[in-house]
Formats: sequence, structure tokens, C-alpha cells
Amino acid sequence: MIFSEDFDVIVVGGGHAGTEAALAAARIGQKTLLLSHNIETLGQMSCNPSIGGIGKGHLVKEVDALGGAMAAAADEAGIQFRILNSSKGPAVRATRVQADRVLYRQAIRRRLENQPNLWLFQQAVDDLTLEGDRITGVVTQLGIKFSARAVVLTAGTFLGGLAHVGSSSFQAGRAGDPPSISLAMRLREMKLPAGRLKTGTPPRIDGRTIDYSVMTEQLSDTPAPVFSFMGSAAQHPRQLPCWITHTNSRTHDIIRGGLDRSPLFTGVIEGVGPRYCPSIEDKVVRFSAKESHQIFLEPEGLSTHEIYPNGISTSLPFDLQIELVRSIKGMEKAHITRPGYAIEYDYFDPRGLKGSLETKMIEGLFFAGQINGTTGYEEAAAQGLLAGINAALKTLDRDAWCPRRDEAYLGVLVDDLITRGVTEPYRMFTSRAEYRLQLREDNADLRLTEIGRRLGVVDDARWSAFETKREAIVREQDRLKAIWLSPKTNSSAPSEADVLRVLGKTIERDYSLSELLRRPGVSYASLMSLPGVGDAVADPLVAEQVEIQARYHGYIARQKDEVARNAHYEEIRLPQDLDYATVRGLSSEAQQKLNQHKPETAGQAARISGITPATISLLLVHVKRGFSSQNKKKSA
Amino acid sequence: MIFSEDFDVIVVGGGHAGTEAALAAARIGQKTLLLSHNIETLGQMSCNPSIGGIGKGHLVKEVDALGGAMAAAADEAGIQFRILNSSKGPAVRATRVQADRVLYRQAIRRRLENQPNLWLFQQAVDDLTLEGDRITGVVTQLGIKFSARAVVLTAGTFLGGLAHVGSSSFQAGRAGDPPSISLAMRLREMKLPAGRLKTGTPPRIDGRTIDYSVMTEQLSDTPAPVFSFMGSAAQHPRQLPCWITHTNSRTHDIIRGGLDRSPLFTGVIEGVGPRYCPSIEDKVVRFSAKESHQIFLEPEGLSTHEIYPNGISTSLPFDLQIELVRSIKGMEKAHITRPGYAIEYDYFDPRGLKGSLETKMIEGLFFAGQINGTTGYEEAAAQGLLAGINAALKTLDRDAWCPRRDEAYLGVLVDDLITRGVTEPYRMFTSRAEYRLQLREDNADLRLTEIGRRLGVVDDARWSAFETKREAIVREQDRLKAIWLSPKTNSSAPSEADVLRVLGKTIERDYSLSELLRRPGVSYASLMSLPGVGDAVADPLVAEQVEIQARYHGYIARQKDEVARNAHYEEIRLPQDLDYATVRGLSSEAQQKLNQHKPETAGQAARISGITPATISLLLVHVKRGFSSQNKKKSA
Ligand SMILES: Cc1cc2nc3c(=O)[nH]c(=O)nc-3n(C[C@H](O)[C@H](O)[C@H](O)COP(=O)(O)OP(=O)(O)OC[C@H]3O[C@@H](n4cnc5c(N)ncnc54)[C@H](O)[C@@H]3O)c2cc1C
Ligand SMILES: Cc1cc2nc3c(=O)[nH]c(=O)nc-3n(C[C@H](O)[C@H](O)[C@H](O)COP(=O)(O)OP(=O)(O)OC[C@H]3O[C@@H](n4cnc5c(N)ncnc54)[C@H](O)[C@@H]3O)c2cc1C
Repeated sequence: MIFSEDFDVIVVGGGHAGTEAALAAARIGQKTLLLSHNIETLGQMSCNPSIGGIGKGHLVKEVDALGGAMAAAADEAGIQFRILNSSKGPAVRATRVQADRVLYRQAIRRRLENQPNLWLFQQAVDDLTLEGDRITGVVTQLGIKFSARAVVLTAGTFLGGLAHVGSSSFQAGRAGDPPSISLAMRLREMKLPAGRLKTGTPPRIDGRTIDYSVMTEQLSDTPAPVFSFMGSAAQHPRQLPCWITHTNSRTHDIIRGGLDRSPLFTGVIEGVGPRYCPSIEDKVVRFSAKESHQIFLEPEGLSTHEIYPNGISTSLPFDLQIELVRSIKGMEKAHITRPGYAIEYDYFDPRGLKGSLETKMIEGLFFAGQINGTTGYEEAAAQGLLAGINAALKTLDRDAWCPRRDEAYLGVLVDDLITRGVTEPYRMFTSRAEYRLQLREDNADLRLTEIGRRLGVVDDARWSAFETKREAIVREQDRLKAIWLSPKTNSSAPSEADVLRVLGKTIERDYSLSELLRRPGVSYASLMSLPGVGDAVADPLVAEQVEIQARYHGYIARQKDEVARNAHYEEIRLPQDLDYATVRGLSSEAQQKLNQHKPETAGQAARISGITPATISLLLVHVKRGFSSQNKKKSA
Repeated sequence: MIFSEDFDVIVVGGGHAGTEAALAAARIGQKTLLLSHNIETLGQMSCNPSIGGIGKGHLVKEVDALGGAMAAAADEAGIQFRILNSSKGPAVRATRVQADRVLYRQAIRRRLENQPNLWLFQQAVDDLTLEGDRITGVVTQLGIKFSARAVVLTAGTFLGGLAHVGSSSFQAGRAGDPPSISLAMRLREMKLPAGRLKTGTPPRIDGRTIDYSVMTEQLSDTPAPVFSFMGSAAQHPRQLPCWITHTNSRTHDIIRGGLDRSPLFTGVIEGVGPRYCPSIEDKVVRFSAKESHQIFLEPEGLSTHEIYPNGISTSLPFDLQIELVRSIKGMEKAHITRPGYAIEYDYFDPRGLKGSLETKMIEGLFFAGQINGTTGYEEAAAQGLLAGINAALKTLDRDAWCPRRDEAYLGVLVDDLITRGVTEPYRMFTSRAEYRLQLREDNADLRLTEIGRRLGVVDDARWSAFETKREAIVREQDRLKAIWLSPKTNSSAPSEADVLRVLGKTIERDYSLSELLRRPGVSYASLMSLPGVGDAVADPLVAEQVEIQARYHGYIARQKDEVARNAHYEEIRLPQDLDYATVRGLSSEAQQKLNQHKPETAGQAARISGITPATISLLLVHVKRGFSSQNKKKSA
């Protein structure tokens, strides 16, 4: 049957990518349908029960700055909050939350159910409908046809999903969920460039069988960090500790003894796994000199005893899983509640995508999440948000938004994917960003909320909170510029002792507070402790911005210059129908690579491995000539 | 691999039967393993979000009286509590709870995770292992072999599960969950007598698209009823109303117009559906004169807008589902979030079971729940509890517990199943019980808790609460017997006006309060309002018992006599290896039926349809003779 109402945007899949995509498209005001296997599993965390971490936390803050759900849901579901790298520079500081699985699902589902313009429907999608190379809708398992002008596909690990434990395997989207077989076959038929990847998860443990007394406890930070720019610590439920233990040489012997029965080593699994989230068998083989690996025992929630042993992802046969778990200190009597397993699934070469996450081959079809070769909830959510925005914009005939590498990790993520493709599941790291100092967690709102407002994904409440904060920052910065500290002491000025205490030395000329704040070791709080300098701002986030922007002023200014220099390239668009074999002077390697990638801008072209600055120059000459001749044709 | 530890009892399936079975076996102290597809779906309600109702509520109270989880979980998860038939006699009064799906799952899971001796493991079971005709364990999807001396199989609607909507069908255990195909095939290979049944569920509606203003509101009763004997109203979460609307002639026209596309009428579905939970298409066809059917719109939970429209279960094609829903008053703009569907599945002829729910063919293998041809959570839970108890007793070499028809609805349920089999999904009704007046909700604890204590499923807390209550009842009954009301008024006795008010007339001789309470229209409360009769008991449940037992004293005494007369038959055991063809004088029909059923007692034999009292007499003669000749042989 054909469903009688048309939608603007259909999102397929209710994981982290799909839920952000659906929410974003609906926030923009487009009539959106979210189709997923099971309404009960919306927002389900397939693997570790945690959100954020270095690089990943940055993405979550960006999603939040753009009105997304992930950070806010984590604030409601988090049972342990920490700031990683808190002693390091602000660029690499990151929020990480241990989340209660059930509460997290609930927080996401509540947002979906209460989002105007968004409709939920529980059904697997088996097919896409096209008119020529334009998407027109989807067909569900029951043969129901839904029409839309844009479709966002976020099928995660479900496409042709195959779970492995030892030499056994079974079809599944993840343990307990059915795979998407028909849709995977259909996509393969459409000749979208596909491959296989794999990822894995550790066995889960019954916490009642763990001896925590021999482990190290790790508590939430105090005061508890907050993830969302709109959140507060009062939203957090009861907090729980995590526990730290280690593998030992016996554990490693057990693993080595079982490699001939590991599907990773016997060649049963074709898909490539994530180098940065390796299985324990990978770690033992690759770092064979290391005698011990750290394991974090993370609670799965407030209402369960199940424990997630972070660090021992494995697809070894189950008998070895038991042996290896029980070889670890404090786990001698551990009962496994769910076996660890690896999952292999279809992904699509992201070099087939535009910067908007629209596929190049099929107009109106967007891909987001694990399906693009990434791994991680945060990477999925960020892509989902972007694809949802751009799908909605497309149906409004508005230009796509493609965040730049200097604007957002989201820009880095998408640009990496579409220009370099993936050879293994891609995860975010701060080291992937060349303008790291600008792309901090703390300023994600300052970087993106105004853009989000323009795009239509930022609601009034967030916008007014943001404006208040932004104005307070500027006001305080202006105030600090206007207050001068003089070496001449007088009754109203701070004493020499005060100045020594705060600055570590005396001053020889007049300095504005703004200038003094740039000095290393001078904090905003200490500066404000000087008598006569007026009241500090009340909002700690405003104070933080004032301090960070002053302290890193020089570096940031330099990065901005560099961005400006490179911006030129980013703005030169390359025609998508250009045959690089016709570009004079290009090496045949360069021709091949460019024809394969079809970069959208010269900036993108420059980042393709093997493309030299000389090649770019030739390209620019050609494009200039090409455009003018095209323009001539048009005007003729 | 073979799992290194042995279990006493393995329970396969984490639905309502499986969870009660696992809890009961573990309460008895036997080492128990619960294997299910998915830990997240433990205690999942596949269809309507409600527990209890007439006949069903009785089962839940019995499960509770035996220490089971269902009533207590309903007290924690219930968002509407009502007593049905509250104006009728106590025998047919029943508790019904509308439950929050998420909270219910959580309440069940918490109990499972905290039950000593109980281990959870997430894995589908694909096979059973036997030694001769004795069960030895199970094999999971990953080839893990778990050993146990008893196995309880509770696979619900999952065995060969096939979902239907219009002419489409897909394999599933229920929507969103994978079916059990391998296990179903394996059971068929074992030649256990199997058939197909079907059941259905309505589409779910987004509550935001319903116009409640044109509907009738239905609130919780006040004061809120409590389900568990150990529960309290303070445990209940926030309460929500239900709403009542109706189908109309247009609805019925739409349905009639679609019958040629209904899998129920085109012959696509082989399985027989439940006559008493019919689909809306069944109702429209069977009661063609009726112009309207009532629909209850029931909230699915506190944190969702989803609504369960009780009364329009359907497997019509989805386009007709939309039309039919939107033809109903207040639902003109309804958005369906999940399509309705029917599910067909394998069940096993319960005449192949003993009264303990052990299969006759395979020693140590027990069946409980939907797999035995029943429908409903309550029927499943009751069977699960019983099978769990008997599996545990078996591994302790203790005698099975087979509740009698006059003891419990549980006895009625099992006896009906094993003596009559099923031709359609079996659900409980009070009319199935011949000793209805004895089998009330209110006295489930008085009937069963002492037995449960002996069996080992009733813990100390429940036992001491029960003893306190039972003693208080007896104490109050004794007190009422000792207080006499005299027609002679004196200063300390009630005035004539008081007596008239309470009894409706004056008395002419001395009566004990106990005697007066038996009079129709005299309540305990009004009796206690007489001056000089002392204080009423504080516990309303004690007062209720005192009142009911007095009021129905005569009837109950007569039922007890009848039970005693029939008890004789129930105690005469029939040898399981008896070939009825050798019994002199039996008609060949009787021989056939008895050979097919192999009843365990003469009572059971008497209830087989077509077996006459004359047949039973012949049987008794034979058995007497048989036994004595056997005994002779033994002593020889
Ligand atoms: C076993 C396992 C181990 C993992 N290990 C790690 C790890 O170590 N580190 C890490 O960062 N990440 C890991 N992940 C990955 C992480 O779960 C994903 O990155 C993240 O969930 C991706 O989000 P997504 O939205 O792209 O897809 P998913 O979260 O997989 O969601 C996909 C959604 O689409 C729905 N869907 C699929 N097909 C259809 C269809 N045809 N019709 C309708 N709905 C459909 C599904 O029901 C589901 O709701 C692991 C995942 C698994 C399964
Ligand atoms: C579509 C639908 C409509 C229904 N309509 C009604 C109705 O109108 N009225 C009514 O009273 N009842 C209805 N029911 C029935 C009701 O859901 C069941 O009576 C009740 O759930 C039975 O409980 P159970 O424990 O026997 O099985 P279920 O609740 O079905 O539980 C079975 C459990 O076993 C697990 N399992 C199955 N196979 C395996 C395996 N091989 N290995 C491991 N685990 C396994 C499953 O994962 C699940 O946890 C309906 C059910 C469905 C699906």
C-alpha cells in the first residue's frame, strides 16, 4: 500500500544517528517520519554505556550547541560524570559520562515523542524507491510505501549484520536484535560502493560475583560536570563509582592459547576492526611486551547489577571468555550474563558522499552514522544531526550546511570521511583537528549556536540563554579592558603585596586587567581577588570563557590567520562533472585519484593523500579557464 | 563447548512464565539458570499493558500467595488500579492494573537480578540434550551446552513465530524480536505433539493525535486497590486515566470491505485464534447485528504518549488499519506508531503433560506458558510458577505439587489443559471453576501461602505477615462468636434504634455477632458501629475475611462437602502404563480416549469429555484388581 500522507524527510533507523537526524529535521519544521525496527530500542547503546571522552565529548558538545539531544539525555541518565585531561589545556579537555542504559533510552524516547513535526513508526525498511537517480521514499517490511523528498539512512551495524563468537556466527543487527538483510541486498544491487567492517563488545558480568574490595575505586568528579549547555547538575540521578582492575600474564596466556579459535585470527571475519577500540586479543598480540592492560568495570545502570568490563572486548569462544574473565583479579568467580561478540556489517564508502552527507549517486538520499564507516555513538549522533539538517534544508530548497574544519569537529569528521574514506572504523580524536585550539568543548556554543539558530535547529530557550551568555562574556571582556592596574600605589589601588600574590611579580607600567589575564599562571579568579577591581561575573561558564580567550589569545589569533590563508581554497568549488583526464599537466595518478574522489572544493582536493600543491595549482588554472568558458557558453 | 558448572534447573525464555519459573526454582534453593534472547526484554508484555481482570486477577493473586513476582511488579508499575465486578459477589471480584511497560520490565528484572541461586544468561536456545528419554540440558545458538536435571521451556509465541499483516508476513517472535526457528524444528523432530495457534494485537496510537475531549474518562478506583498481599498503595507511581470510545457502522463497513484481504479470512493463517480475545474483524463478523463495540484507550506508560486501543486487535492490511482507526470518534487524525498484527506459533498439546507440567515423553522437561496453548500473561505466570516449583522439587527428589481444582485456579487451569487439551488459545474465566466460591482473590493467601511455605517458595517476611493476618482473622471470629446481642436492652447494650439501623429489624432472641454477620445486608463495619461491641480490627483485609467468611458460610460449607465427596476420585491414581484396551467392559471410544489421555487420576478421567460415570466404575474395579495382582507379584 501507499501511505496517504507524504513526508518531507524520512529517517531510517532509531540509533544515535537516526534520532538526532529526525529531531533536527523536525526542529527545522519539516514533516519527518522516523522508521525503526522497534520503538523500545530507540536510543539504545549497543556497546559501552558511556557518552563522551576525548574528541567524542567535543562532538557531543557541538551536537548540543546545535540543539541536539545527546548531551541533555546524558545529563538525565548519567551515573558518573568526569572531565578527562582536566589538568591539560582546554583544547583536549573532555567530558565523559557513564550512563544508565534504561534512563538514556527513556530520555531519548521522551524527546522524540514530544518533538512537533516528528512521527514515529515501528517497521523495518526493506527497500528504497527511486525516480531516476532521485529518492522518492522507502518500502517497509510489510510493503507499506512512504514517500518523502529526502531520506536519511542510519542503519548502524544492522546491514547484513553477522555476529561472531569463536567459530559460531549468527545473523543479528546486534545481540537480541534482527539484522537488516533485505535492505542490505537492495543497497548492494544499487551498486553503492560497499565494504565490510567489524566491531566488538566484551562479555557482561553479574556484579554480585565481582570482588570489588581488591580493585581501585573511581568516583564522579566533584562538583559534577554538566554535559549540555542547557543542563544542570540537579538533573543527574544518583552517582555510582567505577572500578579499575587489570589483566595479567595468565590472562594473556589464555588469550594467546586461543588465537587459533578466534574468528579475528582464523580469517572467518573479513571486516576490518577499529584500531583504536581493539579487542583484547588484538591488544595482546599487538603489544606483546605489555604484561597487563587496565580494565574499567562500569555499572550498566542504577537498577541492574550488570557490569560492563571496558577493555576486554572479545570474540573468543565462550569457554575462553570465561577463563579469561576469571583470570582477572577480583573476577575469579565472575558469572557472565551476556557473551562478548564481534559483529560484521556492511558500510558504504563515504567518498561517495557530499559534504552535506547526501550520496553523490542518489539525490535526496543521505547516509549518517556507522553506515559511513565510523564507530561510536558520538560520531553517529554528529553525522545524524548534520544529515537531518541538510535533508530538511534540501526539501526547503535551501543550501546545505557543510561545517568547515576550522569551525567544528563535525567539519573535521565529515571532511575526513569524504576526502580520505576509511580503511577501518573511524573514530574521532583531537589530533585529527589542525585547528584544535579553536575547537574546544567549552566554546562549542560560541562556534555553532548562532549558525544553528539560522538553520532553524536552535529553539528560543537555548537562543536566549546563549545570547545572555555571549553578551556577558563581551561585557566582562570590555570591563577588563577598561580597568587598569598601575605601579603607583594609592589608597584605592591594590597593594604591592596583593599584586605580588596574584601576578607573582610587581608591575612596572600600567596594564589593563585584560592584558594581565593573558599572563601564564594568572587566573580570572585570582585577578578578581584584587581589591578595587569590581565584582567577578557570577556565571562560571562566562568566567571560563573570559579566562580561556585571554590566555590563548595569541595562539588562537595565529590559527585564525592560518585558517584565513587556507579559506581561499575551501571556497573554490570544483565542478562535479569535471573529467580530470582533461586537465592539462596532471599526473595520471592525480587524475585517477581526483576522478575517484570528485572533491567538492580545492581545499578538499588538497587533502587527498598524494595530491601535491603543484597539482592544485594546475587545477586552479584549469577551473578558472573552465568556468569562464562555461560562463561564455551560458551567456551565448 | 560444555559449560563447566551444572545447574539444577534451566529455564528457557524470559517472558511471564519463564521469569516466575526461574524465581520459584531459585527460591526453593535450587541452582537455576534463566536463558533468554535478550536481557533487556525480560518481563516484556507482548500485547496489552495490563495485568489481571476477571479470572486472570485470581491467578495473579495465587501466584502472589506463592511468593511470585507478578502482583508485586504490578503494584510498582501500575498506572491505573481497578476492582472489576466490585458490586458483585466476592467470588467474581477481580483486580486489574494498567501497567507502565518500562516500569514493569524494570520491576521484574530487578527481582531476577537480586534473586539468590538464580543466574541470567542472554542467549537463544537452539536445542535440548537428552539421555534416552531424560533431559540433560540445552544447547544455545553459540553451541554452548548447559547441563541440568530439569529444564522448563517457556518460549511463548516464539516457536516458528510468523507475523501477519494483510497478505504480508514475516518471521518474528513478536514485532521487533527474532523468532525461535531452530528450537521449533528440533521439538518437531522429537515428535512432541504440536499444532499452530494464533493471537493478535491492535495498532498503537500516538496519543497526541487523539481527541480525548469527545471520549469518556475512566479513572483509577479510590482508594487505590493493591495487588500483592505484601504490597501497598504507597508503591504505586502516578495514576493516569483511560478513555472509552466506540466503533461505529462506518468502522464495521471498512472492516467488512477488507475481509477478502484479511489473513484470518483468506486462509493464510492456519492457527486458531482465541475466541475470547477476538480480533475486531472476528467480532464484526460474529456479532454482525452489533452496531458498535467499546474501545478502551489505555496509556502505555508514564513516559510515553503511545496508547493501546483495547478492542481493535487486527491483522487487516495496514491501509485498512488506518481507515478503521480514523473512522472512530476522537481518532479522526490518529497517527499509528506500530501496526497491528497477528502472530502464528507452534504450541504443544498439553494432554502430553502431567499435572506437574512435566512432559510425559521426556523426563525432567517441563512446559509452561503460551507454549501449552494458553494465552495471557497471567496464565503464563501461573504455569511458570508451578513448573518452576515442580522442576526444583524433581531435582530434590521430592514429590510434585499438583494443586487440585478446589484449591486454586492454578489447579483448574492445569487440569483443564491436561485433561481436555485446547482447540483454541485457552484463557481463564471464573466460570471454568466449579468451586468458584472458594477460589476467591481475597483468600488466595489463605488457600495457598501455607502450601507455598512448605514447598519453599514463601520467604520469612511473607510468612510472618501471613501468620499475623491468619491469626487476627481467627481471633476476631472467636471474639464475634463470644459477643452476644440480646433483645433485652440495658444501659450497656445497643439501643433498639441502633439495632434497627444495623440489622434492619429488631431481634427476638440472643444472637452472637458471628451469627448476625451472616445475615444479608449486615456488614462488619456497620456491626462494629454498634455501641458496646468493642473495637473493630484495624487491618481492612482481616475485616474483609471475617465478613466474607461469615456471609458465605453456608454456601462454602456446601461446596466443601461436594469437594470431599469428589476427593475420593482425585486420590485414585491410574497407572501410566495401563493399556485401556485390556480393561474389561470399556467401550472402544472410552478405550481410545483413555489411551490417548493417559489420565493420572480417576478424577481426571471423569472429566474427559465422553467418559461416563459407568466407565469410571469399570475403571475402578479394574484398577483395584490390577493393583492387588501387581502387589501379589511384587510380594511373590
Ligand atoms: C557489538 C558491537 C560493538 C560495538 N563496539 C563499539 C566500540 O567498542 N566502540 C564504539 O565506539 N562503538 C562501538 N559500537 C558501535 C556503536 O554501537 C555504534 O557506533 C553506534 O551505535 C552507531 O550508531 P548508529 O545510529 O549509526 O547505529 P545503531 O546505533 O546501530 O542504530 C541503528 C538503528 O537502525 C535501525 N535499523 C537498522 N536497519 C533498519 C531498517 N532496515 N529499517 C528500520 N530500522 C533499521 C536499528 O533498529 C537501530 O535502531 C559497537 C556496536 C556493536 C553492535
Ligand atoms: C502479537 C501478540 C498478541 C497477543 N495478544 C494477546 C491478547 O490479546 N490477549 C492475551 O491475553 N495475550 C495476548 N498475547 C499473548 C501474551 O503475550 C502471552 O500470553 C504471554 O506473553 C505468554 O507468556 P510466555 O511467558 O508464555 O511467553 P512470552 O511472553 O512470549 O515470552 C517468551 C520468552 O521466551 C524467550 N524465548 C523464546 N524462544 C527462546 C529460545 N529459543 N531461547 C531463549 N529464549 C527464548 C523470548 O525471548 C521471551 O522472553 C499476545 C502476544 C502477541 C505476541
